[in-house]
Amino acid sequence: MIELGANRYGKAAIRLVRVTRGAHGHRLRDLTVAIALEGAFEAAHTDGDNSMVIATDTMKNTAYVFAKNHLDGSIEHYGQALAEHFLAAPQVDTATVNIRGHHWQPIDVAGRPAPDAFVRGGEGTRVATVTATRSGVTVEAGVEDLIVMKTTRSAFSGFPRDAYTTLTETDDRLMATKITAIWRYGAPDLDADATFAAVRASLLEVFADHDSASVQTSIWIMARAILERHQEIEEIRMVLPNLHHWLVDLAPFGLTNDREIYTPTTEPHGLIEATVRRGGA
Amino acid sequence: MIELGANRYGKAAIRLVRVTRGAHGHRLRDLTVAIALEGAFEAAHTDGDNSMVIATDTMKNTAYVFAKNHLDGSIEHYGQALAEHFLAAPQVDTATVNIRGHHWQPIDVAGRPAPDAFVRGGEGTRVATVTATRSGVTVEAGVEDLIVMKTTRSAFSGFPRDAYTTLTETDDRLMATKITAIWRYGAPDLDADATFAAVRASLLEVFADHDSASVQTSIWIMARAILERHQEIEEIRMVLPNLHHWLVDLAPFGLTNDREIYTPTTEPHGLIEATVRRGGA
Amino acid sequence: MIELGANRYGKAAIRLVRVTRGAHGHRLRDLTVAIALEGAFEAAHTDGDNSMVIATDTMKNTAYVFAKNHLDGSIEHYGQALAEHFLAAPQVDTATVNIRGHHWQPIDVAGRPAPDAFVRGGEGTRVATVTATRSGVTVEAGVEDLIVMKTTRSAFSGFPRDAYTTLTETDDRLMATKITAIWRYGAPDLDADATFAAVRASLLEVFADHDSASVQTSIWIMARAILERHQEIEEIRMVLPNLHHWLVDLAPFGLTNDREIYTPTTEPHGLIEATVRRGGA
Amino acid sequence: MIELGANRYGKAAIRLVRVTRGAHGHRLRDLTVAIALEGAFEAAHTDGDNSMVIATDTMKNTAYVFAKNHLDGSIEHYGQALAEHFLAAPQVDTATVNIRGHHWQPIDVAGRPAPDAFVRGGEGTRVATVTATRSGVTVEAGVEDLIVMKTTRSAFSGFPRDAYTTLTETDDRLMATKITAIWRYGAPDLDADATFAAVRASLLEVFADHDSASVQTSIWIMARAILERHQEIEEIRMVLPNLHHWLVDLAPFGLTNDREIYTPTTEPHGLIEATVRRGGA
Repeated sequence: MIELGANRYGKAAIRLVRVTRGAHGHRLRDLTVAIALEGAFEAAHTDGDNSMVIATDTMKNTAYVFAKNHLDGSIEHYGQALAEHFLAAPQVDTATVNIRGHHWQPIDVAGRPAPDAFVRGGEGTRVATVTATRSGVTVEAGVEDLIVMKTTRSAFSGFPRDAYTTLTETDDRLMATKITAIWRYGAPDLDADATFAAVRASLLEVFADHDSASVQTSIWIMARAILERHQEIEEIRMVLPNLHHWLVDLAPFGLTNDREIYTPTTEPHGLIEATVRRGGA
Repeated sequence: MIELGANRYGKAAIRLVRVTRGAHGHRLRDLTVAIALEGAFEAAHTDGDNSMVIATDTMKNTAYVFAKNHLDGSIEHYGQALAEHFLAAPQVDTATVNIRGHHWQPIDVAGRPAPDAFVRGGEGTRVATVTATRSGVTVEAGVEDLIVMKTTRSAFSGFPRDAYTTLTETDDRLMATKITAIWRYGAPDLDADATFAAVRASLLEVFADHDSASVQTSIWIMARAILERHQEIEEIRMVLPNLHHWLVDLAPFGLTNDREIYTPTTEPHGLIEATVRRGGA
Repeated sequence: MIELGANRYGKAAIRLVRVTRGAHGHRLRDLTVAIALEGAFEAAHTDGDNSMVIATDTMKNTAYVFAKNHLDGSIEHYGQALAEHFLAAPQVDTATVNIRGHHWQPIDVAGRPAPDAFVRGGEGTRVATVTATRSGVTVEAGVEDLIVMKTTRSAFSGFPRDAYTTLTETDDRLMATKITAIWRYGAPDLDADATFAAVRASLLEVFADHDSASVQTSIWIMARAILERHQEIEEIRMVLPNLHHWLVDLAPFGLTNDREIYTPTTEPHGLIEATVRRGGA
Repeated sequence: MIELGANRYGKAAIRLVRVTRGAHGHRLRDLTVAIALEGAFEAAHTDGDNSMVIATDTMKNTAYVFAKNHLDGSIEHYGQALAEHFLAAPQVDTATVNIRGHHWQPIDVAGRPAPDAFVRGGEGTRVATVTATRSGVTVEAGVEDLIVMKTTRSAFSGFPRDAYTTLTETDDRLMATKITAIWRYGAPDLDADATFAAVRASLLEVFADHDSASVQTSIWIMARAILERHQEIEEIRMVLPNLHHWLVDLAPFGLTNDREIYTPTTEPHGLIEATVRRGGA
């Protein structure tokens, strides 16, 4: 017997910009939204019966309408409004809304921010995922593609050596990575904009100001600090590629290279992932 | 109390080419390998103790050595050899090896395949993932980025309409998608090359030769056919974006457009995912 | 005094698909079109006067209308119709239409090509550029992203050595490249589809079947062969990155590596460009 | 007769990082370098004679050595040292060095910049191209991928209407673009770092603070301002895609949309290019 297992569907890569035209300047929001639904969709698969299938085109329209009516606050707030809207359909068990927020900042004109002109920038992309079920709402927030480097205070030694080991131990290497960090809030009601900014600043600060014995221990140190500083967070998951920078051998040219000239590489790269959370008792 | 949750680490994007120089021509293998380990790595995180941490550089070296010694057969066979090697380390509970195989075919010279010159091509990328634990070995195979289109025999109608619905029903639309299909074998011992080729051919054939009422039902029809035709497969997971092609409105130019001129788009796109499996009893 | 120099404008990345529904099967065309105009557009720049500026949105519409009316033959023919249309505006001196053709092939069903289902593939992307001026029409055709590899018959030696040279000479290396080849026809009237197929086959065949002393000499050998075999071509320009494949050092593991296991790399890469043409007298 | 036309070769995508470890903090340089040579390389093509061919691997080594010895100042200075080095080989007529500089800024720790930890960011990528010939050295500088948006003060009207025109005129649209601006200095001796910063600031400021009648006129206004403010620049070339943002039609949902909710798009896009220069007399 052949049966349907886990399934979900939705609309991804919905691009939208909202311009709020205030008396003292414009506010610019630039989002990429993805919506996914799970629920009683078996007949859609096995019988070609679309009577329960909210069209993904309808999801897109809804995202635009809600951008007009529910995007005055945080992207988490907007995501929750969207998720709860879709959950109101009886065939939906789980509605997940993922939002990526692209950062624009006002351009300086004669030392002042322009009211109506912006440059895209910022480091890393803000992300939020709201999941609504009959049991309640879960809010995750985070940052992706936050590229950082420590030029010292990073070591890697004491690892086991076998027949395939050639790496030399080092007590001072470059550590470069592209941080993905996603954290889950204990409750959906919070000042998500302020919390995001604070957590992002913590991440960067702890990254900068710790001694690393490995990427693994760097994740632990950053994640533990986030949980200690930000009580509203229950759990944080981090994914850190190790973007190796190799010292160039300048000896053939009669030169020393004391941690000065490096080749950055992306292939291959280490890839280190861990979740850190508040434990029981 | 703050504690370490799920974690894993490894080396990704290991690129390797093997050339086997036979009397009647060369065989070319071009792979991207990723290795990930789970196990007793808590001290690496919480204490900066690397004594159990197999260096990811060692993993890379091992991938190269095993490419010389264990890559005569399928990529699944090579992946299993690698995964079992890493599982032999007592601190490792789970070793996962993911391999993407890039396709090259001999160039035609005067109607014959060149023995030593190749053109990169093929449709889609072959993938294999071998997971080794103390309980045994799991082998998944599949294809990614297999881009296909049906120019008729695809409909979408009968879906519910709410205040946000503007999509018109259609009984004849283009259906274009980029198939990701990953299937799990019941047992690791099989002719993985022949099976892959047969499943891929089945996927394409059923995609071409069915009437689609929705992407959901297309997934079901393809997946069920795969399970019916290929008894060695226990489960198949498919991820299909709906890469919309919109009819261009040519009425302003005094022209009809009866399913002839379309605009392909990628943003936004539908995204449909489902697993189909052999059920109990 | 500050003045306007060379300038041009247009619409790029116009995506279009045309399905021709014949009795015995569908024909699928999938193109990306870019249109650029040069001419009497100074006032648009210096005075903000748009009275001569054909809107790029109009260009897009025109591309769709002409896809219905002028895309029965080659993309070169379609490009020429578009270019001549825009040249008919008196303010236009030069109209350039660049077209990239994406390849789809019918899916096999029970050994026969499906009439209405296709898989995207093919090696390399076909390109055509038609430039129309008051003096006439120029047609260039070519191929991009044609990735090829020779597993032997490629050497590189005899190069000069200075204080910065460490590369060893080799008489048997891998040569991998991603060919861009663009050729100019002597006259726009030709069977562009058949010629493209023949030239592409020649390129591959000569790539496969020559001994290479360098990428430079491979370009010369291929380009000369194209000009010798295809009299309708006046000139060919080739751009070949040298996608290095480095032999992995397996000696630390007690293994030899006689041209067997390689690491493919893309950063850095050699980059070799040359034009070869029919010369005077 | 078949002959060799224009040709050049070199090494591209040389990635390098230099860390200068000062008493009060580290300086981090992160560059991608491309080197290309033209000259007496005909025999390399036509005869497979490599005796004049400086290996591209040697170029890469040279880039690393010069990064140690000649990268204390601007990237333009480093590029000039490299270009003049290669020009010293008698077979070289033209040596071109292109450098892209990736921006990193110190991470804030408790309100102060960390001495040894950085985050990648900045808006746009700085580029420099130095071309050395027997006649002298030319230095171009610029910025790529500088993404900006005006939320008002941008119009497009008064364009001609033909049978294919459907675009409505607008006196208030979004204007979004990704600026590529490359300018040529009159002489290579200048404070290239300070000048780059000043020109980049001018570009942004003028972009923000002008009324646009079209992308064409925006280029002219920005370019003219650059030439007026920065006498060391002889010529500036700008390439601006018009990244359309379309107003979403919310009327079907009973809502007005007065320049508030937009869909950003990238396909198709306008593409506007112009050079502005100091003229004769």
